[in-house]
Amino acid sequence: MQRIRISDARHHAGESVEVAGWLYNLRRSGKICFPLVRDGSGIMQCVAVKASLDETLFESLRSLTQESSLVIRGKLRAEERAPGGVEMDVESAEILQRVPETDPYPITPKDHGIDFLMDHRHLWLRSKRQHAILRVRHEVIKAIRDFFDSNGFLNVDTPIFTPAACEGTTTLFEVDYFEDEKVYLTQSGQLYNEANVMAHGKVYCFGPTFRAEKSKTRRHLTEFWMVEPEMAYATLEDVKQVAEQMVVFIVGRVLENRREELKVLERDVSKLESIRAPFHRMSYDDAVKILQSRGSEIQWGGDFGGTDETILTQEMDRPVMVDRFPATFKAFYFQPDEARHDVVLGVDVLAPEGYGEIIGGGQRIHDLDLLLRRIDEHHLPREAFNWYIDLRKFGSVPHAGFGMGVERFTAWMCGLEHIREAIAFPRMLYRTRP
Amino acid sequence: MQRIRISDARHHAGESVEVAGWLYNLRRSGKICFPLVRDGSGIMQCVAVKASLDETLFESLRSLTQESSLVIRGKLRAEERAPGGVEMDVESAEILQRVPETDPYPITPKDHGIDFLMDHRHLWLRSKRQHAILRVRHEVIKAIRDFFDSNGFLNVDTPIFTPAACEGTTTLFEVDYFEDEKVYLTQSGQLYNEANVMAHGKVYCFGPTFRAEKSKTRRHLTEFWMVEPEMAYATLEDVKQVAEQMVVFIVGRVLENRREELKVLERDVSKLESIRAPFHRMSYDDAVKILQSRGSEIQWGGDFGGTDETILTQEMDRPVMVDRFPATFKAFYFQPDEARHDVVLGVDVLAPEGYGEIIGGGQRIHDLDLLLRRIDEHHLPREAFNWYIDLRKFGSVPHAGFGMGVERFTAWMCGLEHIREAIAFPRMLYRTRP
Repeated sequence: MQRIRISDARHHAGESVEVAGWLYNLRRSGKICFPLVRDGSGIMQCVAVKASLDETLFESLRSLTQESSLVIRGKLRAEERAPGGVEMDVESAEILQRVPETDPYPITPKDHGIDFLMDHRHLWLRSKRQHAILRVRHEVIKAIRDFFDSNGFLNVDTPIFTPAACEGTTTLFEVDYFEDEKVYLTQSGQLYNEANVMAHGKVYCFGPTFRAEKSKTRRHLTEFWMVEPEMAYATLEDVKQVAEQMVVFIVGRVLENRREELKVLERDVSKLESIRAPFHRMSYDDAVKILQSRGSEIQWGGDFGGTDETILTQEMDRPVMVDRFPATFKAFYFQPDEARHDVVLGVDVLAPEGYGEIIGGGQRIHDLDLLLRRIDEHHLPREAFNWYIDLRKFGSVPHAGFGMGVERFTAWMCGLEHIREAIAFPRMLYRTRP
Repeated sequence: MQRIRISDARHHAGESVEVAGWLYNLRRSGKICFPLVRDGSGIMQCVAVKASLDETLFESLRSLTQESSLVIRGKLRAEERAPGGVEMDVESAEILQRVPETDPYPITPKDHGIDFLMDHRHLWLRSKRQHAILRVRHEVIKAIRDFFDSNGFLNVDTPIFTPAACEGTTTLFEVDYFEDEKVYLTQSGQLYNEANVMAHGKVYCFGPTFRAEKSKTRRHLTEFWMVEPEMAYATLEDVKQVAEQMVVFIVGRVLENRREELKVLERDVSKLESIRAPFHRMSYDDAVKILQSRGSEIQWGGDFGGTDETILTQEMDRPVMVDRFPATFKAFYFQPDEARHDVVLGVDVLAPEGYGEIIGGGQRIHDLDLLLRRIDEHHLPREAFNWYIDLRKFGSVPHAGFGMGVERFTAWMCGLEHIREAIAFPRMLYRTRP
């Protein structure tokens, strides 16, 4: 008998097939029971009728416990009311492992606290919402890669072990390398991207990044995935354009391929359907004025807090790009604005509905003398940056790029309150298990 | 004037365009010079004739130093002998940054030692061979993802920070987490894959992995990228079949899209063209006999050394899959062979021409009692594995998977002597910079 995946069941109506999965739920009456079986690709409703089955088998199905594993066989019948459009009339089944009633599956349809669920993350992943979220995440990742691959960018991975800090040293995780050497986990692949882009013109890195921030907010993980494109012969304006095109592309793919999942998540898709170019654009100066007028205590020169980002974006129908930040709180490598030396050519893209920052980027300094000055002003050790300085000595060109966090983007797509559900095994200040 | 990438130049023959790049090389006579310009996508030959250019510009081009950055403009002319099939008749140019003759680009066409090149990795990446290798690597990564995405696997990233060791504790990098907590960098996403696969049926993780091995061989990096697929309701045979299909698919993509690069690398493509299914298959028992007959000192029960892998594969025309290894040197989670309890259902795939192991995998223990026994036999702390044990309590099913190293695969495709060139910034025992 052909084994199929539930996601393909619709194409097999009228056929007898087998499905290998787990018992998701079960309704029953005396002479009939309805096992809901999941196999990872979907959920299928089955109908087991006592009169047409071996008695032991019927009783075994009828009393089956949640998450027991089974292979179930039968004829598929088109049924528009069933999830997936087909139902299985059970002919036989084989139970691989019956979860004992004395030690039942710990996650039941009733409500559990978040700590309980996080402690059982390895099982919680099987529930409908978590299943849907990780499928959206996959779509986001695939869309990101397809976007860059089809636009002439080369994927060049940057190292995780780095000898120096990219943006400050206080939020670095330190690793014991061999023989008393210390290395740090990357916070961003950008500096290395800048070397790679001079070899390949357009590149992106895409991997995990690490920040030892003691932030316990709904927007922070200590380990998160980030894509970082970089372009040679490019400016701040190019960054804004590519970021905008990329976001529109990803949202389009999610809407195209993950409607079912968004429905499970009760996501208001009209909010995503309104994401199109052009995004809102404003300067940091104007953003500060708007924030002040709405009651924020931010002063010119200060970075946005999470609340500021929420205030700025909660009424927005599409993302907003804020640019030209004070040089004072941005990293040493930002190119200053020629027209106004107190601001740099950086941009943040904030997602609407209060989701806040998903992208940060800008144009990098390409002039050797200016870079050296900035390294000194930031009290960074020149020696550690010799290779980076080389990039300004040997064929320097204006270049620019950005970074986008996968979990923040996924949380926005899914309408999640907290970023911790946007990755399979989140790592946070007080969470390193399971 | 339209700016184009050199990879598209062929489609613009007859047009006047501009190219933004770097001077790769320069030939000259008194009244004419031939700048070779690279822009990351390719290399273009340009022709600058003194009589038809501004004199200052001509002199400036004629004396231009290697790796200086420039935007060059002119008319493209079809020329079959030129790389890329077109040549540019230069009309104007703008030099962005001239590399000074007093501090010239350090990597010249003459031979440099490997330490010098590795110290200048940030620049070495621009040279023709390194450029070609990273383009092959990109193709390998893309092919891997396309293969799994189009075969119903979900990409679920597994954590980098792990509380416990997956395969032994001696080769782990330790990280200082917050408040005296210690975590370790992942050596494999497999244990977490096993949780994810019970939620999604077929999954893969794809990210950097870390091994603190003090090996200084041509096959080892301390930080390398690995794809790890895992399948529920699957056995050792499924692993062999999927691994075989995947390898054939990737090799096909590399041959389809990276011919030019393989030519630059002087790779004998006939060796890659002969990679097709079925691969050679042999048991560990037979492999040991063959090795002994060829002079290896291996005894039954011992793991292959690098030399053994070379001996086994150097005469092969396609990969060989060796299976059923002694339980003694494999990790605790391997499913034993029912027919012979001294061996486990593991498989290694060795690449031909002496490249050796690129894939390792097998079937995992799904029986709760057996798993508990193995954890005890391996003196592992049960407490740390509680969540992993849960997977055998709540709907356990036979499952299997494998891991494949991206750099080893890329080295094989490119015909590299040493794996260190198969990643942009390799990390090895004595190499953490730049």
